[in-house]
Amino acid sequence: MWNRLIECVPNISEGRRRDIIEEIAAAAAGEGRRVIDISADPDHNRSVITIVGEPEGLSAGILALARKAVERIDLREHQGEHPRMGAIDVIPFIPVRGVTMADCVALAREVGAGITRELEVPVYLYEEAATDVSRRNLAAIRKGGFEQFAEKIAAPEWRPDFGASRIHPTAGVVAVGAREFLIAYNINLATSDLRVAKEIAATVRFSTGGLRYVKALGLPLADQGIVQVSMNLTNFKKTPLLLVFDLVQREAARRGVMVVGSEIVGMIPRQALYDVAAATLQIERFSADLVLEDQIVAALQ
Amino acid sequence: MWNRLIECVPNISEGRRRDIIEEIAAAAAGEGRRVIDISADPDHNRSVITIVGEPEGLSAGILALARKAVERIDLREHQGEHPRMGAIDVIPFIPVRGVTMADCVALAREVGAGITRELEVPVYLYEEAATDVSRRNLAAIRKGGFEQFAEKIAAPEWRPDFGASRIHPTAGVVAVGAREFLIAYNINLATSDLRVAKEIAATVRFSTGGLRYVKALGLPLADQGIVQVSMNLTNFKKTPLLLVFDLVQREAARRGVMVVGSEIVGMIPRQALYDVAAATLQIERFSADLVLEDQIVAALQ
Repeated sequence: MWNRLIECVPNISEGRRRDIIEEIAAAAAGEGRRVIDISADPDHNRSVITIVGEPEGLSAGILALARKAVERIDLREHQGEHPRMGAIDVIPFIPVRGVTMADCVALAREVGAGITRELEVPVYLYEEAATDVSRRNLAAIRKGGFEQFAEKIAAPEWRPDFGASRIHPTAGVVAVGAREFLIAYNINLATSDLRVAKEIAATVRFSTGGLRYVKALGLPLADQGIVQVSMNLTNFKKTPLLLVFDLVQREAARRGVMVVGSEIVGMIPRQALYDVAAATLQIERFSADLVLEDQIVAALQ
Repeated sequence: MWNRLIECVPNISEGRRRDIIEEIAAAAAGEGRRVIDISADPDHNRSVITIVGEPEGLSAGILALARKAVERIDLREHQGEHPRMGAIDVIPFIPVRGVTMADCVALAREVGAGITRELEVPVYLYEEAATDVSRRNLAAIRKGGFEQFAEKIAAPEWRPDFGASRIHPTAGVVAVGAREFLIAYNINLATSDLRVAKEIAATVRFSTGGLRYVKALGLPLADQGIVQVSMNLTNFKKTPLLLVFDLVQREAARRGVMVVGSEIVGMIPRQALYDVAAATLQIERFSADLVLEDQIVAALQ
């Protein structure tokens, strides 16, 4: 077991061609890191690959994955519901155990510099790794998407942190950052009316008056004939999952719409599920010490 | 890490004198087993001690714990809300990993025989370890409690599985068994009216028409001036925790009473909390594979 553990969840702009997705994920394999999940979303045409490892191993693995993504994905032919600006769109590093946020920031800068040097893809550093407060928010960097980035990158305020002020012709640009654990969480609604999803997204997200650590979009799920509130929960300890779910459900009910179901894209930390269960059951003085497996692991260490 | 893992949760009839409780739990210590939790309940005047270990280690540890409990607890002076018949009241063995229910039954019989032989306390084998279907249900064995057991034990149908047909003068009798994981779960209600708790207990428990794997009692929590539905959930996979909570909450609301909170006595398996969270959030296709820590452990093995 590694003592210094970082998680990295690169998002690539390919969610339909399974062979290509697996080839890109496989490129990350090697000493000191492990690919533990591939979550492909055909509607978004986007995949989230989860890799854990020690800083040194992860650095080499992510560079190899980026190389393969740039080789295999041509954004000029890409269509999907999710905003994106790069073949490998976002690369966040997340501290898990035995490392600090500063370690993750250092790793983000090292990997970002390597991607520009080797692949000639311009890099923006974001969130905790940002070089300026205007670049902390990923949505601000991504605004306009691939199609408008050739123009955006020429503006002095959008000069990349690494690389020249021109996009890579097929791979666009990439954002590399460091942040706390993010839960990608979508709630599906029993209506085909996209306005319902968009209104609810606007109500729950921080940017338009909602909850502090929620980002949200309303999207159609065309093949199912329903709509989705697609969210990123950037701090589940301060804005709990259950609060977000209850608020979306209530806003949907106000419009005569039921929640069909919800989905976790990628991974969820165990604590987030414990928090939902403890709050739902109103468990007094809940802690992980009450959980059989956690106790056994603690006792046998 | 042990490959063959059994859990044992002896219930002792002492929940108030912390030093005595800890002395009894400490007696179980030794090679091949570990005390991982002590949950003392002053209202019930009862404690649940959780011990995990390999079959051999556990056998020696439980016998030592029983010896100390018989030495320290005098049931003639014991008062508390929970029905009981012994100083060490119940000893269940539960398969966790690498063992079968048959292994737990064999262990229950071995430990039961040892307790009678060494401590002269009569033993009833119950649930999976029972020698007759009439003794599977612990409540049937315990009915009447310590005060009436001197008489009950003389009846031919209540002849003990081990030992003579007379109770130990201070320690009563003990039930030793094997079973699946039991969640001891109590829900507290914002009323001092004991009838409300008793009515709801009667509604939710199997024996009077309720849910298949629920045992329930209505009890007063005198020091808090409220009442409690005190339950044992004997199969959380078939009768989910959330279903039980929702039903109790609904029955309470029907009587104009709010749920104050709930409590887990002892331990809860991780899966039971995952099930509550997944059902509450309506997560589609939930599995433990979505949980970060579970994935990391699986990947690094």
